[in-house]
Amino acid sequence: MGKPAPVSPLAPAAFPDLPEIGGVRFATAQAGVRYKGRTDVMLVSLAPGTTMAGVFTRSATRSAAVLDCQAKIGGDSAPGAAILVNSGNANAFTGRRGVASVEAVTAAVAERLGVPAGRVFTSSTGVIGEPLPHERITACLDDLAGRLAPGGIADAARAIMTTDTFPKGASETIAIDGQSVRIAGIAKGSGMIAPDMATMLVYIFTDAAMEQAVLQDMVSALNCSTFNCITVDSDTSTSDTLLLAATGASGVRVTGTNVGFMEALRRVMLDLAHQVVRDGEGATKFVEISVTGAASDAEAHIHAKSIANSPLIKTAIAGEDPNWGRVVMAVGKSGAQADRDRLSIWFGDLEMAREGEISPMHDEARAAAYMKNQTIVIHVDLGLGGGTARVWTCDLTHGYIEINADYRS
Amino acid sequence: MGKPAPVSPLAPAAFPDLPEIGGVRFATAQAGVRYKGRTDVMLVSLAPGTTMAGVFTRSATRSAAVLDCQAKIGGDSAPGAAILVNSGNANAFTGRRGVASVEAVTAAVAERLGVPAGRVFTSSTGVIGEPLPHERITACLDDLAGRLAPGGIADAARAIMTTDTFPKGASETIAIDGQSVRIAGIAKGSGMIAPDMATMLVYIFTDAAMEQAVLQDMVSALNCSTFNCITVDSDTSTSDTLLLAATGASGVRVTGTNVGFMEALRRVMLDLAHQVVRDGEGATKFVEISVTGAASDAEAHIHAKSIANSPLIKTAIAGEDPNWGRVVMAVGKSGAQADRDRLSIWFGDLEMAREGEISPMHDEARAAAYMKNQTIVIHVDLGLGGGTARVWTCDLTHGYIEINADYRS
Repeated sequence: MGKPAPVSPLAPAAFPDLPEIGGVRFATAQAGVRYKGRTDVMLVSLAPGTTMAGVFTRSATRSAAVLDCQAKIGGDSAPGAAILVNSGNANAFTGRRGVASVEAVTAAVAERLGVPAGRVFTSSTGVIGEPLPHERITACLDDLAGRLAPGGIADAARAIMTTDTFPKGASETIAIDGQSVRIAGIAKGSGMIAPDMATMLVYIFTDAAMEQAVLQDMVSALNCSTFNCITVDSDTSTSDTLLLAATGASGVRVTGTNVGFMEALRRVMLDLAHQVVRDGEGATKFVEISVTGAASDAEAHIHAKSIANSPLIKTAIAGEDPNWGRVVMAVGKSGAQADRDRLSIWFGDLEMAREGEISPMHDEARAAAYMKNQTIVIHVDLGLGGGTARVWTCDLTHGYIEINADYRS
Repeated sequence: MGKPAPVSPLAPAAFPDLPEIGGVRFATAQAGVRYKGRTDVMLVSLAPGTTMAGVFTRSATRSAAVLDCQAKIGGDSAPGAAILVNSGNANAFTGRRGVASVEAVTAAVAERLGVPAGRVFTSSTGVIGEPLPHERITACLDDLAGRLAPGGIADAARAIMTTDTFPKGASETIAIDGQSVRIAGIAKGSGMIAPDMATMLVYIFTDAAMEQAVLQDMVSALNCSTFNCITVDSDTSTSDTLLLAATGASGVRVTGTNVGFMEALRRVMLDLAHQVVRDGEGATKFVEISVTGAASDAEAHIHAKSIANSPLIKTAIAGEDPNWGRVVMAVGKSGAQADRDRLSIWFGDLEMAREGEISPMHDEARAAAYMKNQTIVIHVDLGLGGGTARVWTCDLTHGYIEINADYRS
C-alpha cells in the first residue's frame, strides 16, 4: 500500500466547523476491513420523518450497494433511516457474494437501530473484486450504536477516506421565515475514481422538512452543475453515490420554489465537488474551464469536458505552458458544433486567440507568468450561440502516474 | 525544443527495405521551416493516370491543408499528381493566412511539375497557430523537382517526422495473374496527436491500376480496422491525413473484389498503425485490447476504446500491475451495453475474472509475471452477443508527462 501521500497542495487550510443537524447522529469505528490503525466504518442514524434523495453512478458495472440504494430511494416514509459506509473494500464486481454482504449489513443495521431494512443505505469504497468481509462490520454495530452522537460529522469525514489526502466538509446556515435552516455535508474522492479505491461518496444532511420528490428533484438538478461538472481523469467509478437526508428537525418546511435554500444547497455541493478536485491524484493546479457562445448548454458542456479531460492540456498546465493550440485541438475533437474561424480563447484575462487565429494581443511572457498561478481559468468562446458551461479539473502530473502505476504493489 | 528523445524501446530493429513503385518519385530538402540541420520537406511526383484516395481527421478545427485535400479527392483523372508535406509547422488555426499559404504552395508545385493545382495535395505537421513561412518551401521547389527519384521513400519517411523517434515504413508485394503488384507506405505520428506537433500522416503508394471509387471504398473500409483502432492518448489531431495513390504502372487492374490485394493493403496499413503506437510518447509497452461477445461490433469498439483510453489502466500497465478491476470500471463507464454478471477478463491466457467475479483460476503471481512482457493482450468477453473489436494502444508513463509538460519551453 506504500506510504501515505502528502496532503494535496490545493487542500483547504483546515476542516471547517460544521453545524450539528437536528435528527442526525454519527459514530465511527475501526472494523479492520482492510486498513489498520484508523477508522473505516461510519454509521449515521436519521430520525423518524427523514426524507432521502440520491444520485448514483451510471456505470453498467455498478456495485451491489449502489443497486440496493437505488431500489430503496423514493417515497415519503415515516420511520427513521440509517447510512452505513465502509472504506477499504468496494464490494464491487463480487457477484452473488456481494449482494449477500449488502443484505447482511443492512439487516444487521436495521435490527440494531429498529428501522426497516428498506431504509438502510450502504456504500463501500476501496478495492474492486475482493469479497467484503462484512462480519467485521456487523461485529462493530453494538459499539457503533452505543456511541451515536450529533457532533461526530468530522470523524465521519475521516472514516470514509481512502486515498484522500484530506477530509472534505462544507456547510451553510440560512434564515427562512426568521428561522435557521442548516445544511452540512461530507465527501470523499481523490480522482473521479481513485485507483482501486474506486468511488466518490457524498453525504449531505439538512434539518429542513422536505417532501421526498422535492428533495430528489433538487439534488438531481443541482448535481448537473456541481458533481457532474468535475473530472480528474475521465474515469468513472462503479460506486459513486450522493445521498441527501432532510430530517425536518428545524420545523421549517422547504418547497421546490425556495430559491434561497436551493442556492445554499448548491454552494455546499459545489464546495464539496471542488474539494474532490483539489484532492485529485497528483494535482498541483485547480483548473476552471468556462465555455460560452456554444450552440446550446449541452454542447458547451461537451466542449468543456473535452478540454478538461485532454491529457495534453492537463500536462501542459502541469508544465505551466500556456498551450492554447491544444485547446483548439480539444474543441475540434469534442464532437460538438464548432466553427474554427469564430473560436476565441482566454487564459485568465489574457486573450490568446481571436476568431480562429492567434490574438493580436498575444503576449507569451505574460501568458507564461499567468500559468504560475495555482488556480487557472481557461475560457473558450465558440461564437455560435448562447450555450454556456463550467467544468473544474486539475493538472496531470508525475504524481498521478506514481500513485496509479504503483498502487497495488 | 529540448534535446531529442531516445528511440522508443518498442521500435523495429531497422527501417524496412521498401520496393520502388513505378510512377512514384520522391525528393526531400532542408527548407528550414522550423528545424535546423535536418530535412523538413517531402515532394512526391505521381505519374499521369494515378488515382488518389484519402481519409482525413473529423476534427471541427481541421487545418487548411486538410480542407484543401478533402475538396480535391475524388474523380478519376488523367493528369499526374503531386504531394508536398512539410514538418515543423502545422499551418493549423492560422485563419485566412493559412488558406493563402496552401494556395501558394499548391500553385507553385503545380507550375513546377506541370500538373493542375487541383491535383496537388499538401500536408503540414508541427506547431499549431503560427503562420507557415511558405516562401521557405516554395524557394526549394526547383531543387526538389530536379532531384526527384524513385528510390527516395526512406528519406521521405525521415523528412516528415516531428517528435517521432524512428521513421515508419511498410510494404507488401503480391502476385496477381502472374504479375507482381507492389504496395509501399510511410507514416509519421507519435501520440494520436503529438504535442504541438499535431498530426498523424500516412502516404501509401501502389502500382496497381485502380478506379478512384474502388480505391476510396477500400481505404475507407480498411481505415476502420487499422488507423481508427489505435489510440495513444485519446486526443485527436487537427491535421490527420492518409493519402493512397495508385499509379497503374504494373499494368495490373485491381477491382473491389480482389481479396488478395485488399488483404495486402490491410497488412501495410496495420503495420504502419502499429508503428505509430510503438512510437507513442513515453511508451514502454505495446497493448492489444480484444473485445468479444458484445451486442455488436460497434459496441465492442466502444468498450475497447474505453479500456484503451483509460488513464488508470494505462498507468497500471506501465507499473506492470495486473489490475483487472480497472478493466471492469472502463467497461462500466463506456456507455455501451454490458452485464456485470456475464463479464469475463483475461490478461494474455490468464483468466482474471469470470462471469462477474474474480476467477477461481486467478493467480496473482503468474499475472504479475505476465505483465513484465513488452506486449500485453487484454481480452474482455461481454457474454452478450457476437460483436468483436481489436484496438491497440500503449502504456502511460512518466515519459508522456515529461514530453508534453515541457514541450514548448
